[in-house]
Amino acid sequence: MLNIVEAIKQKYEANKCPAIPSTRPEFQLFFNDLVTNDFNTLFKSLPEDRDYFVAGVPGSFLDRIFPESSLHFVYTSHSLHWLFKLPAELEEENSPAWNKGRVHYTNAPDDVADAYKSQFCEEVRKFLDARAKELVGGGMLVIIMSGTPVDLPLSSTANGKMFEFMASTLMEMVREGLIKESQVDSFNLPLYQSASPEEIVDIVERNGCFSIERLELSKPSSWLKGAAVDVPAWMMHARAAMEGNFIKHFGSNEVVDEVFKRLTKKHLDHSELLPQWCNQDVQLFIVLKRKKIISM
Amino acid sequence: MLNIVEAIKQKYEANKCPAIPSTRPEFQLFFNDLVTNDFNTLFKSLPEDRDYFVAGVPGSFLDRIFPESSLHFVYTSHSLHWLFKLPAELEEENSPAWNKGRVHYTNAPDDVADAYKSQFCEEVRKFLDARAKELVGGGMLVIIMSGTPVDLPLSSTANGKMFEFMASTLMEMVREGLIKESQVDSFNLPLYQSASPEEIVDIVERNGCFSIERLELSKPSSWLKGAAVDVPAWMMHARAAMEGNFIKHFGSNEVVDEVFKRLTKKHLDHSELLPQWCNQDVQLFIVLKRKKIISM
Repeated sequence: MLNIVEAIKQKYEANKCPAIPSTRPEFQLFFNDLVTNDFNTLFKSLPEDRDYFVAGVPGSFLDRIFPESSLHFVYTSHSLHWLFKLPAELEEENSPAWNKGRVHYTNAPDDVADAYKSQFCEEVRKFLDARAKELVGGGMLVIIMSGTPVDLPLSSTANGKMFEFMASTLMEMVREGLIKESQVDSFNLPLYQSASPEEIVDIVERNGCFSIERLELSKPSSWLKGAAVDVPAWMMHARAAMEGNFIKHFGSNEVVDEVFKRLTKKHLDHSELLPQWCNQDVQLFIVLKRKKIISM
Repeated sequence: MLNIVEAIKQKYEANKCPAIPSTRPEFQLFFNDLVTNDFNTLFKSLPEDRDYFVAGVPGSFLDRIFPESSLHFVYTSHSLHWLFKLPAELEEENSPAWNKGRVHYTNAPDDVADAYKSQFCEEVRKFLDARAKELVGGGMLVIIMSGTPVDLPLSSTANGKMFEFMASTLMEMVREGLIKESQVDSFNLPLYQSASPEEIVDIVERNGCFSIERLELSKPSSWLKGAAVDVPAWMMHARAAMEGNFIKHFGSNEVVDEVFKRLTKKHLDHSELLPQWCNQDVQLFIVLKRKKIISM
């Protein structure tokens, strides 16, 4: 956020009219998260000598959370690929989208992948509808999230491999009697990680309120250190992001400890392949501009 | 806050022009408190079906916490009589404002009362300076806080009597060896409860940015039930407001339990006098309007 504030300040300074006495623009930053987030810790972690105003906004960003035309710049990083809810079909044992023996749509039948995709499109549609109302005409919406080229199977990416390893780890634990098979069958991670640029263009055009200023796939490569991958750091990050889902479903910290211990080992056992899996364009960078609002 | 939102909606409906198609005004409510407040509990306690937007704003309201001209209505209830810090003179043993054997300026020498008053005026000055910047021209600032008529000694009000009883209770506990006398001498409650309408007029006029729309003293009478006073409810309320100060200074919950047990008894022992002490004009209701801002 501070980089954004600095960039806007610099642009303002560069473009201001020398004939008009200088005023410093003021910034008000709103931090949004679900109401279950710990806003107290967020507020205490903000620097005391900040030169911007802050506010915390609780609530789902799929809904309206700000007044009409009240925002100039919206930034969301690594959130939009998290689904607010799993597609209902995944939870019905007789549905063709019942995801037996897997934890994600990686390597799953089309019915499973389609259910994830529909849910993702529905949530992004709601997200764009809400932001279109809240942004001023000319306002910017910047999104960083997971994505893939349209022709790259998720199973050949680092995340796809991780979901495969999670599934095989859990099935091992089923065979050892540590958890039940039905628990694995009904467990699905609410992550859509293969939005393609083409999909994004389609959703944005259906919304109709935004122009696309930038739309790029890039390599996040956070875990690539030279030619090697820092597996423990990657696994710690993955656990921080996902352990809530595991604990809620399997009901015990011990299961999660065991899953991530085995998962780390599986990744280390494949260390010669990791650089190739990690070296893919799986991060979407999207810059949208709210079209001018023409009042009637 | 909801009463305020409803009142503004009604006024809007009553004054709108029949020739212009109806739009519903949107409301964004900002809740401000110190960063140590529990915003998580606040957010979870908000109704889910609210028809207004919310945000939490951490920080002292003596400073700027909102952008310039960004607020239309500010409301603060029972906060402004709490001092952010005690006057430094009260903490110096050789100062004429050393408040020996008391916990407040009630019944104290003028030096003590003057130190409290200076601190209060300084804090209200800062508060008004900040709000004058943040409110739009024509915006409203409504304050409810403790106050007294200029000629009413605090010692003849319910709060003044409570501070007297607190001091005598603590000195009893000194004699019984439960606490040290030096602890009582250095303990002062950061409350200024005798702002008079004349004092408020003076501070507002020095600020110069507000017109005074209403300025009234009234009886809060919360503890007056018919002719009797609900002492346990009053003491519970007083404890909720002040126990943090006691615990921080005396370092133990047991001392606070003992203080409020004895304090309750002292009030019950004087129950015939309580209605008279409570029946005073000790609540200030202040309505200010930000003067129009004329840009150069």
